[in-house]
Amino acid sequence: MDRRNFNKKVGQGFLGTTLLAGMPLACGMENTQNKKKLGIALVGLGTYSTYELAPSLQETEHCQLAAIVTGTPEKEKIWADKYGIPKENIYNYENFDEIAKNDSIDIVYVVLPNSMHADFCIRAAKAGKHVICEKPMAISVLECNAIIEACNKANVKLSVGYRLHSEPYTKEIKRFVKEKTFGEVQYISADAAYFSNTNPNQWRLKRKLSGGGALMNMGVYAIQSAIYGTGMNPSNVRAQEFSTRPDYFKDTDETITAQFEFSNGAFGNIMTSHNANINRLFATGKKGWFELNPANNYGPLKGRTSKGDEIKFEHERQQKLQMDDFAKHILMGTPNVAPGEMGKRDMIIVEAIYQSIKEGGKTIPLDLGNMGIVSK
Amino acid sequence: MDRRNFNKKVGQGFLGTTLLAGMPLACGMENTQNKKKLGIALVGLGTYSTYELAPSLQETEHCQLAAIVTGTPEKEKIWADKYGIPKENIYNYENFDEIAKNDSIDIVYVVLPNSMHADFCIRAAKAGKHVICEKPMAISVLECNAIIEACNKANVKLSVGYRLHSEPYTKEIKRFVKEKTFGEVQYISADAAYFSNTNPNQWRLKRKLSGGGALMNMGVYAIQSAIYGTGMNPSNVRAQEFSTRPDYFKDTDETITAQFEFSNGAFGNIMTSHNANINRLFATGKKGWFELNPANNYGPLKGRTSKGDEIKFEHERQQKLQMDDFAKHILMGTPNVAPGEMGKRDMIIVEAIYQSIKEGGKTIPLDLGNMGIVSK
Repeated sequence: MDRRNFNKKVGQGFLGTTLLAGMPLACGMENTQNKKKLGIALVGLGTYSTYELAPSLQETEHCQLAAIVTGTPEKEKIWADKYGIPKENIYNYENFDEIAKNDSIDIVYVVLPNSMHADFCIRAAKAGKHVICEKPMAISVLECNAIIEACNKANVKLSVGYRLHSEPYTKEIKRFVKEKTFGEVQYISADAAYFSNTNPNQWRLKRKLSGGGALMNMGVYAIQSAIYGTGMNPSNVRAQEFSTRPDYFKDTDETITAQFEFSNGAFGNIMTSHNANINRLFATGKKGWFELNPANNYGPLKGRTSKGDEIKFEHERQQKLQMDDFAKHILMGTPNVAPGEMGKRDMIIVEAIYQSIKEGGKTIPLDLGNMGIVSK
Repeated sequence: MDRRNFNKKVGQGFLGTTLLAGMPLACGMENTQNKKKLGIALVGLGTYSTYELAPSLQETEHCQLAAIVTGTPEKEKIWADKYGIPKENIYNYENFDEIAKNDSIDIVYVVLPNSMHADFCIRAAKAGKHVICEKPMAISVLECNAIIEACNKANVKLSVGYRLHSEPYTKEIKRFVKEKTFGEVQYISADAAYFSNTNPNQWRLKRKLSGGGALMNMGVYAIQSAIYGTGMNPSNVRAQEFSTRPDYFKDTDETITAQFEFSNGAFGNIMTSHNANINRLFATGKKGWFELNPANNYGPLKGRTSKGDEIKFEHERQQKLQMDDFAKHILMGTPNVAPGEMGKRDMIIVEAIYQSIKEGGKTIPLDLGNMGIVSK
């Protein structure tokens, strides 16, 4: 999309206060925040920003691509040309903190390797910007705490890049759980895996950058599935690690299984891997079962239930829905569907899984209460 | 079905040498074994014999219900009336060994509680009868060995009641695996569970009779799924036990998960429970996935693949197909699709799972080779 089309698409200009079609205009309120599209700065212009977030930001109603932050100078011109980003809205990792002075940026979306999340989220908060932190939120619970604290201190909103909470198939599953459509869920099985076998040099396979392997990458989806598939946080976890290709997966976990127990007697069994290809959620209650397969990819997802129904929704870019949900949370005070507490909770579980593996599969108790459970 | 209809159904009489419609009659061979329906004696007239095996034996082509063995005198008349069984073909557990003198009995199908399998299978073999042993084959590997040895010594055939090996959906899965339709299977997930919460006094919940809980009962299906879903025996196993209702499941395991590794790098994750309701098999290779859900019940099963296909076959009683397969094995030398070695192999895995649990989830190596793998 060239600059002209981009400008046309978003309305009266691509930065700053764009009036939203269809929003009631209260007299004298033209300049208040709830009438503009929030400006998003993407930090890190890898595959996910390039093929998912930037295209999605051409479709969002409440936010738009305002700025980029990249460590690769040659990407600057490509993105500037493609999305009409003015020179003053292009940053690198060194001058990133100057975004504090840039009023066209409302939200910073950190899409960097996991080990860099905390640093850039905290710097974004200090710059007075709202923060979306891509999943996994960080590489330790301590880092999650630091991000949350920085956002609280700066009085900015914080969300984790859990796009599925804005996605209709997943929302339907959450409705089944809430309304006990198939009875209280008694067992949930979730697998989140893909073959990561084409590039041994990718950052995801380097512990220093990723913090871990399959579990940090896809495992977080399986953990999420186990929680929104039951509507509860687990009360304990056991885990096992498997390595069949130590030559390739030298530095990070290849395959992990984990079992959750829930306080009501439900249980879960998850698998995550960089050496298999599947993403699915399957849950069964006393009155039947439901499943998503695929459950975690960019969609459209697919779902079925024991009633013989196919779960079916119109496809929209998940990242569009996600970023609009966060923008609405900021603009209109709607619930934050994937708050920082949720990312921190999942990192507590990730650490418990690694601990269980380290201790030979020992049961690790979790004391999570309702942490990260968003009921709406 | 009364005696008249029964006789009508099976042709020229319900015992002894019934000519099979459609079988070529070689001149002068009227009296050889390959032209008669083999007579089956059901040992134990519980739910499975009553509602599955006896009705199936009204539809079998190569075998028929010839005799009953029961410890409950009042069942004698009910069965005799319903299926036209003559007095001389009705036995109890004490006079059971007299079947040796009864030429109308070719096969003894042992449908008793697990702890009684070995005793009655061995007595059947000693009586010179072929043996079908319901699953699980016994309550220990030692007992499996004793059954196999007794059958070998008596030169009689032995099969385990693994009806699914005769069932078309399962056979289709085995074809996918053999032909690598979805690539070599890399991951298999199998869950086999049902709510066993209506009768705390059932024999399945008493260790002395069952030898174990969910694992002995449904778990064997999940083990089977993991093996025919990959076409290989696992090279090791780890396992975990979960108990949420110790008040009800006092004496036997409620829920068990286990992970298998295979020598080619594939892995499996199974769950079995008496406190959840599901039976399914899901397998994924590099070219796609396939699943059965349900995978283990009396059918019709249901299956789907990543190609968007539904797996679809005409429904026939699985037990009919199973018993006819065994009769054909005896009569025509076709492969024994569920030989004793298969039941023994699964019991080796069951014991390894219990051992892993006992040792806190330790990896238990399995040295199975191709034991129990029937390639046809």
